[in-house]
Amino acid sequence: MKTRIDPWSSTEIKDYEKISKEFGIEKIDSILKSLPKKHHYFTRKLIFGHKSLQTILDARKSKKPFTMLTGLMPSGKFHLGHKMVADEMIYFQQLGAECYVVAADIEAYLTRNIKRDKLKQLATEEYFLNYIALGLKPKKTIFYFQSTGPKEYMNLSKYVAKKTTFNELKSIYGNLTPEKIISALTQVADILYPQLDKPKPVVVPVGIDQLPHINLARDISSRLKSEYNFILPSATFHKLLPGLKQGKMSSSDPTSAIFLSDSEKEVEIKIKKYAFSGGQETIKEHREKGGNPDIDVSYQYLTLFETNDNKLKKIYNDYKSGKLLTSELKQILIDKINSFLKKHQKNKEKAKNQLDKFIQK
Amino acid sequence: MKTRIDPWSSTEIKDYEKISKEFGIEKIDSILKSLPKKHHYFTRKLIFGHKSLQTILDARKSKKPFTMLTGLMPSGKFHLGHKMVADEMIYFQQLGAECYVVAADIEAYLTRNIKRDKLKQLATEEYFLNYIALGLKPKKTIFYFQSTGPKEYMNLSKYVAKKTTFNELKSIYGNLTPEKIISALTQVADILYPQLDKPKPVVVPVGIDQLPHINLARDISSRLKSEYNFILPSATFHKLLPGLKQGKMSSSDPTSAIFLSDSEKEVEIKIKKYAFSGGQETIKEHREKGGNPDIDVSYQYLTLFETNDNKLKKIYNDYKSGKLLTSELKQILIDKINSFLKKHQKNKEKAKNQLDKFIQK
Repeated sequence: MKTRIDPWSSTEIKDYEKISKEFGIEKIDSILKSLPKKHHYFTRKLIFGHKSLQTILDARKSKKPFTMLTGLMPSGKFHLGHKMVADEMIYFQQLGAECYVVAADIEAYLTRNIKRDKLKQLATEEYFLNYIALGLKPKKTIFYFQSTGPKEYMNLSKYVAKKTTFNELKSIYGNLTPEKIISALTQVADILYPQLDKPKPVVVPVGIDQLPHINLARDISSRLKSEYNFILPSATFHKLLPGLKQGKMSSSDPTSAIFLSDSEKEVEIKIKKYAFSGGQETIKEHREKGGNPDIDVSYQYLTLFETNDNKLKKIYNDYKSGKLLTSELKQILIDKINSFLKKHQKNKEKAKNQLDKFIQK
Repeated sequence: MKTRIDPWSSTEIKDYEKISKEFGIEKIDSILKSLPKKHHYFTRKLIFGHKSLQTILDARKSKKPFTMLTGLMPSGKFHLGHKMVADEMIYFQQLGAECYVVAADIEAYLTRNIKRDKLKQLATEEYFLNYIALGLKPKKTIFYFQSTGPKEYMNLSKYVAKKTTFNELKSIYGNLTPEKIISALTQVADILYPQLDKPKPVVVPVGIDQLPHINLARDISSRLKSEYNFILPSATFHKLLPGLKQGKMSSSDPTSAIFLSDSEKEVEIKIKKYAFSGGQETIKEHREKGGNPDIDVSYQYLTLFETNDNKLKKIYNDYKSGKLLTSELKQILIDKINSFLKKHQKNKEKAKNQLDKFIQK
C-alpha cells in the first residue's frame, strides 16, 4: 500500500529508506561531496534526502541568484524541531541564498483554532525573533504573512487551482475539506512566490511531513511552464525529531518538547522527567547490558547540539557499552541545551531591535 | 427531487413558482407596494422574487447607507441579458445605493478558457463602458477586479472556507473541482466585501442561475456573525431572458443574442433570421389562429424595451388574436432596439472619458 503523509496530523515514519524510494527522494549521499560548508545535519543524515538540490548548487557555482523559502505555522511555542529548520535556513543563507520566510497565518486560521489577531503576535514573538537570534541576517531576507504578501502572490494561490484536480488533491491529502484545499494551494503559491519576478532556483528545507506540499508545488510549477516558466523548486528533507516522550513534538504540550523559551530549571525537569530513555531499568543491568542510543531521545537531541563528531561517537559507544548511565547522558544534554539557551535567550532580546529590517513593507 | 441550479452551465427553468418555493425565494408581489420608483422589470415580474429586500427598503427609509453589488464575468460580448442586470444596478443606484461592481477575472480565468491578459480589456470595453453608457453614475460607485481588490477582501475569500463544508458545497454545486471551490468562495467574499468596513445592507441583483452563490453567501455571512457581524445580504432574482433561438444567450455565439455593439443591419438580420417565433406557419393560418406571445422571443425582448404598459398590452393582444403578424412584431422590436442602440453606442463612446472616475485605485 502506498504510504500517505499527512502534513496536518502526526505522521510517524519508521523507514526513511522506504519513504525515499516511494516518493522519489534522492539520498543525501548522492550530493554530499558537492555540498559546500557541510553542516552536521547533512553528514549525520538528519537531513536524509533531497529533490533537485543540484539546481541550487549549480546556481551558486555559477554565481546566479538562488532562493530559500520556508514557512512557519504560528501555532505555539518554538521548539527544537523548529530550531532544526532555522539552522537549515541559516545554512542556505550562508551559501548565498536570498531568504523568504512566510508565516502561514491563513493556514493557521483555517486548520487550527487560533484567532486571527493572535497569529501575528505568535509569528513575531515565537518565530521571527528566534530566527534572528539563531543567526538569520537581514540582508536579502524577507518575512511576510500569507495575509499580507503582494496581490500577485495572493492571486497565484487561486490561479494554481486550475492546474490540479480534485482527484490529485485527494490522492495526496486524503480526506479533503475546503480549508485544506485553500491551505494546500496557498502553500503552493508560497513556494512559487520567489519566482514571480523572474524564474530562479528555490530550495525549501522541510521535515518529511511536508513532502506532500513540495510534490504538489513541483507538479503545479511544471504545469505552469507556459505561463510563468518557473524552475522546478528544490527541497531538502529532514527526519522528524522525536518528542521528549517519543511521538510528536507539540508546540502546545510542554511535556512533549524543549521550547527555546524554557528556563534552565524547566529544561532540567523536562529532560529528567520525560525524555524517553534507551537505558536499562537498573544501574546494575545498564552496566551489564548497555543502553540503546538509537532509541534514546536525549541522544537524538545531542546529535543536534554536539557538533564534534568524535565526542558524539564516544557518547554513543559509552552509552551502548553501559559505561555511560542514562542520568549522565541526560546531564550532558541538559548542560548542552542550557548553555545554548543562555546565549540564545539573550540574543532573542537583542533581536527585537532588528525585527524591522526583516518585515516586508 | 431537489432542483440543482448550476451557475457554471446552462440551466433552463420552466417553473419559477416551484423554484421559489423550493429555495425560499419571496415573491416580488410581497414587496411591490413598498417599492419606490417601480421599474417595469418589477411590475412585469421579470424580476419575480427576492430575499430580504425589505432590509434595503428599511435602510433607505431611515436614510441609512445601503449598497448594491453586482459581478460580471468578462467572457465575451455584452448582450441583452447583461443589460437587464445593468438596468437593475442603475435602479438601485437611483434609490441611493452605493455601488460595487466586480469583474470576476479570477473566476473567468479558472472556469473559462480565457487568458489573463485578455480579461481586463474585456471587462473594461464590454462591461464597464456599457454600464456607464446605460446610466450608471460615478458617485459612490466602485469598479474592481477580483485580482485587484484590497487584501482584506482577498483574505476573506480564504477565511470563508472555514465556514462551509465539503458536503455543503457538493450539495449546492454538484460535481466539485478546485476551480469551482475557489470561484464560489471568491464570490462569497465579493458579496460580503461591501460590509468589510462596517456592516450594512447589500442587495445583489442576479439572474436565477446565480442563486447558489447568494444562498452560500447568506449562510456563510450568518456563520461569521461573531467575527464580522455581517448583515444577511439581500438579493433580487430575475428570470433568464431566452436566447434568440430559445435556449441560453451566449456572449460568444452571435446567433444566440443581440449584442449592444451590434450594427443596425446585424440587429435586423439576427431578429429576422433567428428570433424564435410564436406565430403560425403561414400568414393565413396566423390570421385565423393567432400567435403565442408567451413563447415568442421577440415579444419577450419587447417587455424589456417597451416601457408603456398599454402599448405592450396591445401588442400582446394583437399578436394573440392574429391581427399582428410575426414579421410586424419583429419589425417593432428591430425599430425599438435600433433606436435604443443608436443612442447607446454614442453614449458608450462618451463613456470612455468617464472610466477613470469609476475604477478603484
